[in-house]
Amino acid sequence: MSSPVRIALDAMGGDHGPESTIPGAALALQENPQVGFLIFGDEIILKPLLDKYPALKAASVLYHTDKTVRGDEKPSIALRSSKGSSMRMAVEAVQDGRASAVVSAGNTGALMALAKLVLKPLPGVHRPALASVLPSFEGETVMLDLGANVLVDAENLVQFAVLGATFARIYKNIEMPSVGLLNVGSEDMKGPDHVRQAAKILSRIDFSGRYYGFVEGNDITNGTVDVVVSDGYAGNIALKTAEGVGKLTRHYFKKFIKSDPFALVGGLLAFFALRRFRDRLDPRRYNGGVFLGLNGVCIKSHGGCDALAFSSAVKLAVGLAEQDYIGTVAHDINHLMTQESFHSQDSL
Amino acid sequence: MSSPVRIALDAMGGDHGPESTIPGAALALQENPQVGFLIFGDEIILKPLLDKYPALKAASVLYHTDKTVRGDEKPSIALRSSKGSSMRMAVEAVQDGRASAVVSAGNTGALMALAKLVLKPLPGVHRPALASVLPSFEGETVMLDLGANVLVDAENLVQFAVLGATFARIYKNIEMPSVGLLNVGSEDMKGPDHVRQAAKILSRIDFSGRYYGFVEGNDITNGTVDVVVSDGYAGNIALKTAEGVGKLTRHYFKKFIKSDPFALVGGLLAFFALRRFRDRLDPRRYNGGVFLGLNGVCIKSHGGCDALAFSSAVKLAVGLAEQDYIGTVAHDINHLMTQESFHSQDSL
Repeated sequence: MSSPVRIALDAMGGDHGPESTIPGAALALQENPQVGFLIFGDEIILKPLLDKYPALKAASVLYHTDKTVRGDEKPSIALRSSKGSSMRMAVEAVQDGRASAVVSAGNTGALMALAKLVLKPLPGVHRPALASVLPSFEGETVMLDLGANVLVDAENLVQFAVLGATFARIYKNIEMPSVGLLNVGSEDMKGPDHVRQAAKILSRIDFSGRYYGFVEGNDITNGTVDVVVSDGYAGNIALKTAEGVGKLTRHYFKKFIKSDPFALVGGLLAFFALRRFRDRLDPRRYNGGVFLGLNGVCIKSHGGCDALAFSSAVKLAVGLAEQDYIGTVAHDINHLMTQESFHSQDSL
Repeated sequence: MSSPVRIALDAMGGDHGPESTIPGAALALQENPQVGFLIFGDEIILKPLLDKYPALKAASVLYHTDKTVRGDEKPSIALRSSKGSSMRMAVEAVQDGRASAVVSAGNTGALMALAKLVLKPLPGVHRPALASVLPSFEGETVMLDLGANVLVDAENLVQFAVLGATFARIYKNIEMPSVGLLNVGSEDMKGPDHVRQAAKILSRIDFSGRYYGFVEGNDITNGTVDVVVSDGYAGNIALKTAEGVGKLTRHYFKKFIKSDPFALVGGLLAFFALRRFRDRLDPRRYNGGVFLGLNGVCIKSHGGCDALAFSSAVKLAVGLAEQDYIGTVAHDINHLMTQESFHSQDSL
């Protein structure tokens, strides 16, 4: 039996800070009563809040600091002045083994830089990547990179495929997840050179997933594959576009229902069905970007998260920590790096 | 007064062929009774269909050919064997001045290659780009490139901005459309080199739009700018992702409403509001990709279009032809190419 999982929380990060992170952690604890927390932040603010959540208080150790990383600071500047901040202390708790994972809703760039600096990439990993889980027809799709790496080469993409496949194996509990490369068409000759080169490498290496081929933007929600791999530029744009379409749809749905008294009554009758509909696609259920490829689990929650959304990010951290994602992926990356067919580049 | 606009139709293109294109053209004619059509395709199929739409029949000249470009053919192969096909004959009608615009629902790659070959790029244009109009909070957003150019440089992006701004001026009837570059963040140092370089050039040149800065995926639907510019890789992925999210939302909405008798009654009460909602975001209303930068208006309709969707593509062609998009954009591109600040490259 492994020891119980402990999660380090940057309690001060995000637009709503402790008002979201503390109730969010309390929510996650209800479903995972075995978990302990290390909470980093300003005790003057946190203590009265923790008093409202006695179960969380009992499961937590509070580490005081009044220093925070500002949400709007440039990552390079935030990094230099991060010593002693709630974000950095939380990441360090994973590095020195007191915690199995860290969750923060703070400055994305700063968290990414800090996590890389403190936790370090796993041996063999060139570029850590940001992954997330998105809703699909078939259930859920793992997608990466979502913005950590704007420019990538074929080997980076192949490593993302391995990082993502291992994540899907653990998160979705499937033996050989299917992996697709995001592209502008399914034909072999389509797309940028590094994407076509990555396809060649993925077709010949041995890894714990099954290479499917190229997929397009609509395949993310179609659930064509378990894992969609792309560079951080296209991945981030796809993710933000999806968020935008969701927001636009909700806006117009409410607008047209409210403008018609019959529809308003209809909406009341459909209340429970609409709630199930909303819950199924609720972005808060899918909150939590994971930095894959680091020597430690680091989860970025959306900055604008509420308690429910933050609890999703915490639950993701718990799941990955309990099932030893790091140990598994370290093995899988090592297996990749020992294969000659990964390194040999042929021309397109 | 200019002479009435004539539109060339590849009647055989698309998954449903004449079953969509003929009723679609008839629909478009109802709203634009001044327009004439040149219809290219198999008269054995087309004649009986046209008999059902006497107004369209009266406004059309039918050009017989039993040759078509297959939807699944590689563009290079389709191009070689395209002579005498309905698609090529329709494009040639624009080239020789018999028609002011061509609309096809056929093979995208083949149409793009044919249009470039037959119509030729406008003087100064390096790369024609595929543009479309998407719904937003504020109305509509013009977006390009949607897949014609996977790899682009800074000058290509700047030309796309000019092509798109002129399109928005004519299509949305606004004097100085705002233009944003699609990126992964709004800060100056974010994104790939060619995107940052394009931002520099756009800030200093004189063109018929206003450069806004970087925008993100969610800004497409937010309506932050009138025109969103990107390379064809990210643009195509964003467009297809948006389509996928729309489809997923409709799927789950129907599923949850149907699973609950109260919600079904509610749905009936909300029938008209839901129809207005559906119409506002209906992809068929936004059907029609325009190849910008060619010496002639060429519109690609979605291959799976029905009559309503095809009529949207035809109406787009009519609007651009009637307002002389080609003459205006030729002038705007010429103005761009005479500016020294467009060509001088400084290091980032």
